[in-house]
Amino acid sequence: MAEDRIHDDDLALADHGEGEVRPDDRVNDERHDQENRLKPSFVSAVHDALAARDKGAVYDLVEPLHAADIADLIELLEPRERAQLASTISDLMTGDVVAELNDYVREDLMDTLSAQAVAVIAEQLDTDDAVQLIEDLDEADQRAVMAELEPETRAAVSSALAYPEETAGRLMSRNFVAVPEHMSVGDLIDYLRENGDIEHDFFEVFVIDEGHHPVGTCALNWILTTPRSVRLTDLMKRDQTLIPVTMDQEEAALMFQKYALISAAVVDESGRLVGQMTVDDIVHIISEEAGEDALLLSGAGDGDINEPIREAYTARVRWLIANLGTAVIASSIIALFGAAIEQLVALAILMPIVASIGGNAGTQTMAVAVRAIATNQLTRSNTRRILWREFRVALLNGGTIAMLIGAATGILFTPMMGLVIGMAMIINIAIAGIAGVAVPVIFERLDQDPAVASSVFVTMITDSMGFFAFLGLAVAMGLATF
Amino acid sequence: MAEDRIHDDDLALADHGEGEVRPDDRVNDERHDQENRLKPSFVSAVHDALAARDKGAVYDLVEPLHAADIADLIELLEPRERAQLASTISDLMTGDVVAELNDYVREDLMDTLSAQAVAVIAEQLDTDDAVQLIEDLDEADQRAVMAELEPETRAAVSSALAYPEETAGRLMSRNFVAVPEHMSVGDLIDYLRENGDIEHDFFEVFVIDEGHHPVGTCALNWILTTPRSVRLTDLMKRDQTLIPVTMDQEEAALMFQKYALISAAVVDESGRLVGQMTVDDIVHIISEEAGEDALLLSGAGDGDINEPIREAYTARVRWLIANLGTAVIASSIIALFGAAIEQLVALAILMPIVASIGGNAGTQTMAVAVRAIATNQLTRSNTRRILWREFRVALLNGGTIAMLIGAATGILFTPMMGLVIGMAMIINIAIAGIAGVAVPVIFERLDQDPAVASSVFVTMITDSMGFFAFLGLAVAMGLATF
Repeated sequence: MAEDRIHDDDLALADHGEGEVRPDDRVNDERHDQENRLKPSFVSAVHDALAARDKGAVYDLVEPLHAADIADLIELLEPRERAQLASTISDLMTGDVVAELNDYVREDLMDTLSAQAVAVIAEQLDTDDAVQLIEDLDEADQRAVMAELEPETRAAVSSALAYPEETAGRLMSRNFVAVPEHMSVGDLIDYLRENGDIEHDFFEVFVIDEGHHPVGTCALNWILTTPRSVRLTDLMKRDQTLIPVTMDQEEAALMFQKYALISAAVVDESGRLVGQMTVDDIVHIISEEAGEDALLLSGAGDGDINEPIREAYTARVRWLIANLGTAVIASSIIALFGAAIEQLVALAILMPIVASIGGNAGTQTMAVAVRAIATNQLTRSNTRRILWREFRVALLNGGTIAMLIGAATGILFTPMMGLVIGMAMIINIAIAGIAGVAVPVIFERLDQDPAVASSVFVTMITDSMGFFAFLGLAVAMGLATF
Repeated sequence: MAEDRIHDDDLALADHGEGEVRPDDRVNDERHDQENRLKPSFVSAVHDALAARDKGAVYDLVEPLHAADIADLIELLEPRERAQLASTISDLMTGDVVAELNDYVREDLMDTLSAQAVAVIAEQLDTDDAVQLIEDLDEADQRAVMAELEPETRAAVSSALAYPEETAGRLMSRNFVAVPEHMSVGDLIDYLRENGDIEHDFFEVFVIDEGHHPVGTCALNWILTTPRSVRLTDLMKRDQTLIPVTMDQEEAALMFQKYALISAAVVDESGRLVGQMTVDDIVHIISEEAGEDALLLSGAGDGDINEPIREAYTARVRWLIANLGTAVIASSIIALFGAAIEQLVALAILMPIVASIGGNAGTQTMAVAVRAIATNQLTRSNTRRILWREFRVALLNGGTIAMLIGAATGILFTPMMGLVIGMAMIINIAIAGIAGVAVPVIFERLDQDPAVASSVFVTMITDSMGFFAFLGLAVAMGLATF
C-alpha cells in the first residue's frame, strides 16, 4: 500500500506533541455545544470566511477539528459550499474525513474530484472504507479510479467488489494478524515487533493451522498479561464466532451484538481465514439497521436528509400512492353506508375517531412486533404467546378508550350512539392488536422485511374495520337504515 | 472480588480443550437456523424435557449453548418454565447468562431467587453488569443483596448507584489499567504480566499523571508492535475523548460512534480517571437508542415484548387517550361542516382520504427529522435548509397525489369535486411537510425528546387541516353551503 498514508492521525499527533490540545476539549468548548454538536456560531464563522474567500481564516477554523467533526462541518454547510471548503483545506481532507462523510455528501464531493484525487484518498483508507468510497461511484468513474490505484490496493478492492453489497466480504478488512499454532506468547510479541503494522487496528490475533483455517483467537490483553513461555494454543479461545464471507451485514451485526465481539474472523466457503471485521465498523451498521425501522415503518425510504430531493420524492410518493389505495378502499366502505350518513350526520362526524384510534393502536403493536422480529426476540417459538399477549393488551386499551369516548358521545349525542362507538372501538382496537403482530410475522415468514410492508396493510385493516364496525353497528342497532 | 468467578468461560474452554466444538457450529447447526436464532424444534425439545421433569435431558440440551443463547432460550420459553429451567441448569446460569437476559425477564427470575443467590451471580459480573442487575430490584431486595456482597463489590456497586440512571457513572467499569507517565513499553508489559487481571477485558492502557488525570492512551496493538525501550509518552495518543461521569448514556454512545472508539476513559468532575467504558456495553445502548425511535414515535412505550401487560397497557393507553383528544378536535372541525355534509354525502366519503394521506406524509417527514436530530445531523445550522428541502419534497408529493385522486374523483363524482380534493390534498401535504420538521425541531429546542411527543401534534395538524381544507374549499367553491 502507499507510503503516504496519513490514516493514523493518532501517531502523527504523538509525534509533534500537540501540547495545546486539552484532552477534554471536545465537549462544550468554543466550537461544540454540550451535546458535542458543532455550534451554529462556529458553522456561520466558516460560512462567512468561505464567502469572503479568506482561505487563511477557513484553514485556521477547521485545522483543530477531529476528522469526524470536519465531516460533520461539511454536511452542515450548504451543498454549494462543500467543494469550496474541501479545496480550501485539501490537506486536511484525509481518508478519515471522507470515510466519516454521509454517503450522499461523499458521492457529491467525489464527483467534483478527479479520478486521481479519489485514488489518493482511497489509498489512505482501510480496504473496507476504500470499497465504500468506490462502490458508490458510477461504473465509468469506478474504472477510472481503479486504474489509478496501486496494484495491491486495486486487487484488494476488486476482490471485495466481487462480493454482493452489504455482505461481510465487502465490509471486512484484509489487514489482520494471523499466526501459526506452534508460537508462544514470546514468539508472537517478537514477530509483532518485527512485522507488526501499527497503522492498522487489531484487537485479537488469529491462530491458524497449515490450511489457513482459524483454530483459535487470542485477545491482546491476554497476550500482554501472560508470560512469554506460554504457548498460544494453551492461551487461545477455541470457541470462536466465525463470520462467513457471504453473511449479510445485518446478521453479522447481530452476531457482534449477541456475543459481545470486538472483532471476528471472516472465512471463505472452505473455512479459510480471509479477513476480519471490527466492532467500529459494526457500530455504524447496528445504528443504521436499528434506526431504519422508524423510517421504513413510515415509508420514508432511506430517510436521509442528504438524499437528493428527486430520490426522496420517488421513495416517498410510492408509499403515499399505496396508502391512497388503502384510503380509497376505506372510503368505499363509507360509501356503502351513504344513506345512513345522510340520515344521521353524526355518523360522519364520529367515524374518523374510530378509524384513527384503531390505526394508532395497530401502529403501536406493529412497532413492538417489528422491533422484536429485528432483534430475534419474536420467533416461531413464541409467536402464539405474543399474539395472545397483544390481544390482551388490546382488550384493556379498547375497554378504556371505549368507556371514555362512549360516555362523551352518550352525553353529547345519544346514549345509543355512545354504545355503538364504544363497541366499535373495542372491536377495532382488538383487530388492530392481532393485525399488528400477525401482519409483520407473515411478512417475515414470506422473507420480506416486515418493517417495509406491514404498515400499509395494518392501516388498511384498521381504517376499513373502523368504518365498517362503527357504521355497521349503527345500522344494526337501528340508528339509521342501510 | 470472589474467587469462584466463572465470568470468563473463554479461558475455561481453553483449559479443557473442548475438542468437539467446531468453530463455525453456531450458524445453521441442529440448534440454530440460518439467522442464528434457536430453532423452534430445539425450543420445544427443551419444553418437552422440562414438562417430563427429565433433568438430565434438559441439561444435555442446554449445556453446549453459549451464554447468550441460554439467555435467548430462557426468553423464548413460557414465563412459568423459566425458573424451572434456571434451577435445573443452575451451574450453567453464569453471570454472563444473566447479563444477557432481557431486563424484564431478569427481574422476574431474580425475584424467584434468594438474596444470597443473586449476590453470588452479582459477584461474577463486571461492576457495570452487577449494577444493572441490582438497580432493577426493589429497595428491600436491593438492601438484602448488597448485604450479601463482598465489601469490595459492595463499595463499587454503591458508588455506581450514587450516579443517576443511564449515566456513564452507572455504566462504566471500575476495572481498567492505568499507569504512570515514566513507564516504557517494556516496563508496562512486565507490570501487566505481574499485576494484569486476565479476567477483565481492556483494549487500551491509560497513562495518568500524579494527580490521576489521564494524559494519554495506548492501544494494545501499538504496545505489541513497539520495541520495549520506547517510552509510553512517545507512543501514546494525547488527544483522547474523555467521558464525564455524569454524561448521559446516549451522548456517550454517540461519542463512541462518532470517534470510532473501542474504549474510553471516564473522568469525575475534577478530571480524575475513575473508570472506563467499553464498546461492547455501548453496542447495546446504540441499538436500543436507535431502535426506540420507532417505538416512541408510535407511542409504544418501552415496546418490549417481555414488558408486563399492565405496564404495556399503561404506557400505550396514555398515548391512545392523547390521540383520542386530537381525533375529537378533528371531529369538531367536521361538525362545523355538518350542514354541508348533509347536503352532499360525498364529502363524508372523501374527507378521510385527505386526512389520512396528509397524516402519512407528515409521519414520513417526521421520521426523517427525528432520526436526523437523534444522529446530530439536523442542528440549528441547517434547520432552515431542511425545512425548505422538505417543503419541496412535499410539493412534489402533493402534486402527484392531487393529480391521481383529483382525476379519479373528477370521473366518479364531479370535476369540481376533483378540483376541491386535489387542492385540499396539496395544501395538507405541504402543511404536513412543514409540521413534520417544525414540530420535532421545536420539541428538541424545548429539551423534550422529539420522538416522544411529535407525532400526536403532527397527526392533530394533518387531521384537522385535512378536514378543514377539504370541507372549507367545498363550501368556498359552492359545492355545499355552510
